[in-house]
Amino acid sequence: MRYNKRTHTCGELRASDAGKHVTLTGWVDFQRDLGGVIFIVVRDRYGKTQVVFNPQNNSQLHQQAAGLRSEDVISVSGKVNNRPDGMINPNMPTGEIDITAEELTILTKADVPPFAVTDDVNASEELRLQYRYLDLRRPALQKNFLTRHQMYQITRKYYDELNFIEIETPILMKSTPEGARDYLVPSRVHHGKFYALPQSPQTYKQLLMVAGMDRYFQIVKCFRDEDLRADRQPEFTQIDVEMSFVDEEDIYQVTEGLMKRFFKEIKGIDVQIPFPRLTYKEAIETYGSDKPDTRFDLKFTNVSELVQDSGFKVFADVVKKGGVVAGFVAPQCANYSRSQLDLLTDLAKKMGAGGLVWMKVTADSVESPIEKFIGKEVLLSIKNKMQANVGDLILLISDYWMKTYTILGNLRLEIGKRLNLLDDSKNNLLWVTDFPMFEYDENEKRYIAVHHPFTSPKLEDLGLLDSDPSKARARAYDLVLNGNEIAGGSIRIHDRTLQSKVFTLLGIDEEHAKKKFGFLLEAFRFGAPPHGGIAYGFDRICMLMTGEKSIRDVIAFPKTTSAMSLMDESPSEVDEAQLKELHIKIV
Amino acid sequence: MRYNKRTHTCGELRASDAGKHVTLTGWVDFQRDLGGVIFIVVRDRYGKTQVVFNPQNNSQLHQQAAGLRSEDVISVSGKVNNRPDGMINPNMPTGEIDITAEELTILTKADVPPFAVTDDVNASEELRLQYRYLDLRRPALQKNFLTRHQMYQITRKYYDELNFIEIETPILMKSTPEGARDYLVPSRVHHGKFYALPQSPQTYKQLLMVAGMDRYFQIVKCFRDEDLRADRQPEFTQIDVEMSFVDEEDIYQVTEGLMKRFFKEIKGIDVQIPFPRLTYKEAIETYGSDKPDTRFDLKFTNVSELVQDSGFKVFADVVKKGGVVAGFVAPQCANYSRSQLDLLTDLAKKMGAGGLVWMKVTADSVESPIEKFIGKEVLLSIKNKMQANVGDLILLISDYWMKTYTILGNLRLEIGKRLNLLDDSKNNLLWVTDFPMFEYDENEKRYIAVHHPFTSPKLEDLGLLDSDPSKARARAYDLVLNGNEIAGGSIRIHDRTLQSKVFTLLGIDEEHAKKKFGFLLEAFRFGAPPHGGIAYGFDRICMLMTGEKSIRDVIAFPKTTSAMSLMDESPSEVDEAQLKELHIKIV
Repeated sequence: MRYNKRTHTCGELRASDAGKHVTLTGWVDFQRDLGGVIFIVVRDRYGKTQVVFNPQNNSQLHQQAAGLRSEDVISVSGKVNNRPDGMINPNMPTGEIDITAEELTILTKADVPPFAVTDDVNASEELRLQYRYLDLRRPALQKNFLTRHQMYQITRKYYDELNFIEIETPILMKSTPEGARDYLVPSRVHHGKFYALPQSPQTYKQLLMVAGMDRYFQIVKCFRDEDLRADRQPEFTQIDVEMSFVDEEDIYQVTEGLMKRFFKEIKGIDVQIPFPRLTYKEAIETYGSDKPDTRFDLKFTNVSELVQDSGFKVFADVVKKGGVVAGFVAPQCANYSRSQLDLLTDLAKKMGAGGLVWMKVTADSVESPIEKFIGKEVLLSIKNKMQANVGDLILLISDYWMKTYTILGNLRLEIGKRLNLLDDSKNNLLWVTDFPMFEYDENEKRYIAVHHPFTSPKLEDLGLLDSDPSKARARAYDLVLNGNEIAGGSIRIHDRTLQSKVFTLLGIDEEHAKKKFGFLLEAFRFGAPPHGGIAYGFDRICMLMTGEKSIRDVIAFPKTTSAMSLMDESPSEVDEAQLKELHIKIV
Repeated sequence: MRYNKRTHTCGELRASDAGKHVTLTGWVDFQRDLGGVIFIVVRDRYGKTQVVFNPQNNSQLHQQAAGLRSEDVISVSGKVNNRPDGMINPNMPTGEIDITAEELTILTKADVPPFAVTDDVNASEELRLQYRYLDLRRPALQKNFLTRHQMYQITRKYYDELNFIEIETPILMKSTPEGARDYLVPSRVHHGKFYALPQSPQTYKQLLMVAGMDRYFQIVKCFRDEDLRADRQPEFTQIDVEMSFVDEEDIYQVTEGLMKRFFKEIKGIDVQIPFPRLTYKEAIETYGSDKPDTRFDLKFTNVSELVQDSGFKVFADVVKKGGVVAGFVAPQCANYSRSQLDLLTDLAKKMGAGGLVWMKVTADSVESPIEKFIGKEVLLSIKNKMQANVGDLILLISDYWMKTYTILGNLRLEIGKRLNLLDDSKNNLLWVTDFPMFEYDENEKRYIAVHHPFTSPKLEDLGLLDSDPSKARARAYDLVLNGNEIAGGSIRIHDRTLQSKVFTLLGIDEEHAKKKFGFLLEAFRFGAPPHGGIAYGFDRICMLMTGEKSIRDVIAFPKTTSAMSLMDESPSEVDEAQLKELHIKIV
């Protein structure tokens, strides 16, 4: 079909273009017949423009326009007019003008779409995912992808300026299922063997440092075959970075520079650098989370000392066993009713608490169900230590260190939400540092790596690897934005002996280590530089930058939580012949 | 280990830095003991610098340096000195200076590497692939990756400037094995179902056009499970581009702009745009290839008319059956001996020829074994038509159209190489256009798509889809550089009815089409714009830009022709438990 090509996009005509003869191409956003004169709005990625078909100018053309329906694709030519004063639409960048149609070509007729292409769409997410190409026509989603586009360019320009080299690492790699589950790819050529899709390019980027590439980055797809939570996808994008001859400070500095640019160039916001830092221990003991949302306080106070010798056996026992009694002040919540407090207690129990102790600070005293056990004096000392004011509610949890603080962390977020303390205009970026090297897995009866097996212990904790590995801290760090972990990394081990030792501590025996990571240990024989790096969750940062609540809104063709694409119904069945060639069969 | 961090890279110190106290980090490139004074060269990605250890300055330091070996990783501090006039090394950017060592830390001791890290490496490719991280330390390879890095940045900047939007498409997609073999990924969650890795994001990029994204690009990994030829990899990188409301001219213009930038920014060469264009028919009939190397002529001449009524039955029969007799002039090759000509004939036969007819142009006549059949007069008329000169050799092939020209094309390249006509300083870029829509597959007894099933026929050939599909031409185009296809694309079908018709012609029945491409046909119901695009072979362009002969030299971690990674020995065996979770077993 021959048609007039566009001279302008649907977003660019202004009053100064009046008198020009132009051609626009795009989709019919809507069509309206107002007493014989037909108005249509044409839409493309760049905006919307109104076109007028007057039957008195050209009745044949007017008749053609009468047949237009939403989402038809057209090419329309005509003359740009300034709208009369009263008709100017200030909500539309092209609202000063309209176009008197002179020629119309219908490029494609559209069927009635399953839902209207507008930002106040009310179709279910299922339907929108099935017709993703229609959902993606919505200006709000198109804006998200323009922001994502911008983030790609900012990232690459930034690292390029800093002399980083962009290198692609393989997607078909070796299966080393130490962390999450690998996606596997059967080999046709090598009978019974498989590739794996990368959970991250971790080993490759370390090998690039061994190869002397010095500073590497890549925006790269990674894959995890996990049962998906709402904010996870089986394939996701990360900004992957590695640097040689560096320590933590170098990584922090380079990373902060990128975040500063994101905020400046995308949102026009100046974020302060350097970012605050909290050790893992501080983060847990203050906010009950290794990704604390510091947009609001509600910080914790440890009151173990005050209650350890009190008559309240629950508290005393916990402290005796090495646990912690701690809590925080919910400001002006003393008016909570008994049933509200019961619901809060139930919530704490669902989070794993044995119970929740509350104290109300009244004008002249404190009120608490444990007063009869612990005595007023101790209650007042708690109130004083926690600097609670009249009308405040104090919430206390007693349990093992991790459990007490984790439950408090969840309660803190809950109270923060109830009190509307999560200020969306704030952008609190901070580093959490000094993570433990290992945590003990009760199921597997062995240590597992908190970060990953390639993370270096802190130099001053090297001795602890022999005496008490659980106390050893790692040279690992996470970057947190408003309670979301958006990047994480570490200084790596670059010494073969230390790496072997860490594998042993993780219960990876020598044979297994050699089979899975032999090539990395081998590489370390030939001169590995000290190195470290970081990986950013690109999808999540994009979600936060665009103010969306789901990463599906910033991924062009996302999958559902059961890892399905509703649009093309993948995964799907394949031919027997394909499986036969791969030497596999379905059981 | 604590060490001095670098103040400079190994490539940046100059005479103007003399007197500075600096620290370098890097690898020991070599160590030499010259009468007590030890010279070492430190290497990093940025260059090499010489460091001097004089026993009279610091005997302990000197002793430490005596223990250094190639590929040890060090941090070395000292004072920059201007070298005396006679000692300046003009081959080294840092050759004006050296450093008097004051402090040395050995960061990692290296074992003796399996091969020396130098550009005149003489290890086998197998060994170099096994120790890829060592091979990658070679300055020549590092340079390739810096060029590749530059190509990424140029590409994205270019498309960004032109308002293209970068969008990532899924790697886990639906299997639609119409072209090459898919790599499959078994689904754990959906029993008996599989994802496929994309052979290209073709359907996604078309859906992005339906989604109104208007101009899309992506540098993206693609996958083909094929038996590999030397210049193929199971995973490869392409620049993927799609545009709405365009025709061929728009694609040519945008593509030529990128190629111009590549040549200008990487090689400092101004290539002329627009590029020459040849139709497929012209390319085949002139050069015997749809990716002609036009750096040299040796063009073909069709002599069918001259020989169709001659007494040489072989020629006459071929012409009668609709075949072609054609050939080219090999300049100044009349001195080929009988055995040389026999070898050439054998070569032609290996290429599938029934035989090879040669003619030598002598001072006063022509010589040919077919003279006794065809007569001198016809030979002379051939010589005249082909404008052959004294001393030239004429080579003639007679067969079906395609076969004649393909064999001639191969012979032409062979002769071109022998005559040293492939001038590496030339950069001949050209478009080949008007490819046929279909070719008939004798094995499958059906038409297959020459480009792919989504390619639009030329508007003027629409009628041929009914009358003679084999004659229909496609709106498809390839970009060729010095005989290499470096990009290819087409204007797509955007009409559901036409797309269904093409599927039918390709023997894809309605049910099958619906199962495999139903979502695309469905999308076309809701307003698809006219659109088209192109995909560039990034690895191959990079290979040509760096002057390498193998794409393995521009891929960080390449696989062998049997799709293996020699470094980590993937693909590899996996645990039974992993397969069990995926509901598959090896047969």
